[in-house]
Amino acid sequence: MTPPIVPFVGKSGSGKTTFLEKLIPELVARGLRVGLVKHDVHGFELDQPGKDTYRLRQAGAVRVAISAPQQFALIGQVEEELTLEELAQRYLGDVDLVLAEGYKRSQLPKIEVCRAVRSQELLCAADELLAVVSDLHFELPGPQFGLEDVAGVANLLEGIVGARQAGALHTTLYVDGREVPLKPFIQEMLAGAVQGLLAGLKDAQGKTIEVRIEPTRLSDTN
Amino acid sequence: MTPPIVPFVGKSGSGKTTFLEKLIPELVARGLRVGLVKHDVHGFELDQPGKDTYRLRQAGAVRVAISAPQQFALIGQVEEELTLEELAQRYLGDVDLVLAEGYKRSQLPKIEVCRAVRSQELLCAADELLAVVSDLHFELPGPQFGLEDVAGVANLLEGIVGARQAGALHTTLYVDGREVPLKPFIQEMLAGAVQGLLAGLKDAQGKTIEVRIEPTRLSDTN
Repeated sequence: MTPPIVPFVGKSGSGKTTFLEKLIPELVARGLRVGLVKHDVHGFELDQPGKDTYRLRQAGAVRVAISAPQQFALIGQVEEELTLEELAQRYLGDVDLVLAEGYKRSQLPKIEVCRAVRSQELLCAADELLAVVSDLHFELPGPQFGLEDVAGVANLLEGIVGARQAGALHTTLYVDGREVPLKPFIQEMLAGAVQGLLAGLKDAQGKTIEVRIEPTRLSDTN
Repeated sequence: MTPPIVPFVGKSGSGKTTFLEKLIPELVARGLRVGLVKHDVHGFELDQPGKDTYRLRQAGAVRVAISAPQQFALIGQVEEELTLEELAQRYLGDVDLVLAEGYKRSQLPKIEVCRAVRSQELLCAADELLAVVSDLHFELPGPQFGLEDVAGVANLLEGIVGARQAGALHTTLYVDGREVPLKPFIQEMLAGAVQGLLAGLKDAQGKTIEVRIEPTRLSDTN
């Protein structure tokens, strides 16, 4: 089973790594196995010339692994870049949650990190966002968390993992009373996000949750 | 499907890496996708302190991947060392052949590299060996290749890959006329090794091959 994947995006210097560095221990403390994928558009070199693994990679091995008692590593050559989903499916099936750094062009719902000193504007459009982590407030429908609100984001992610592990939750979206079909993945993200955000609400556990969001009517404000 | 796995063993300085460095391009030239696993009993450090991936690993991510246009890497923490078979099954399913360096305690049939200047004796017992690569000759039943005989070893390995890809070949072993049950893996290795060694024998392609090995009878030598 591919674990849920949540990309963290933001302009460079927005504090993605710093936030993830605080968030991961919180998720680990809650018992989750976390995988992380960093997108490196420029390429990288982990290996060093002269080492056996480097020599054998140069000789043409398309996959080189190193295995030690507490750790293993795999370096692979690809003709075409793996998508985040391919990477997670092939190599990260044994974690509960994959967090990604970068991948702002991914179709997956994203969490954007935005720090006022770096930028006052978001990279993503509202419909691409799962949540925002920022010291600013934006006029957006989704959840927003402060730069220190690690517990809030962890609740949201824990909800998403729980929904995946519980199997398919039936999530229906009605817009103006008419049902709008949702892809299973979106159903799951939506269900997970709602459950995560309601994590503190004991009465909601295991029950049918209905969320109705209505535009403010003129009569309400009069 | 897990690809066939062949460990290359030998004392340190026996020339394993040097031989693999010549062998891999030969296998690649024959159209095989080769994966390599290096056993590192001491542990290793690919990542560098201060890098994002290092920081997020320290934060508790059990799997950290980096993805670039031509390359990806995965670093994983394990509580117990992965076996060669586990590594190949989970992470190397997309190569045709896995060569391993080290793993002298593996139960898999091995190729031992032995150079006279380093040692006059083999590490492995005869029944652990698939073949020997050496500038010495040993009194052993299995195939032996010179230190430069890259083509010979490539034939053997190509045969093993071919047998795996052709699906189960029915291989029966008779000892003194009585059938001895063989595990599927051993059947396949045996079939592959025989086919690889007979690669030059055009008449044998696609046909039933029977190999009968009989002890030298006194009457034959008289």
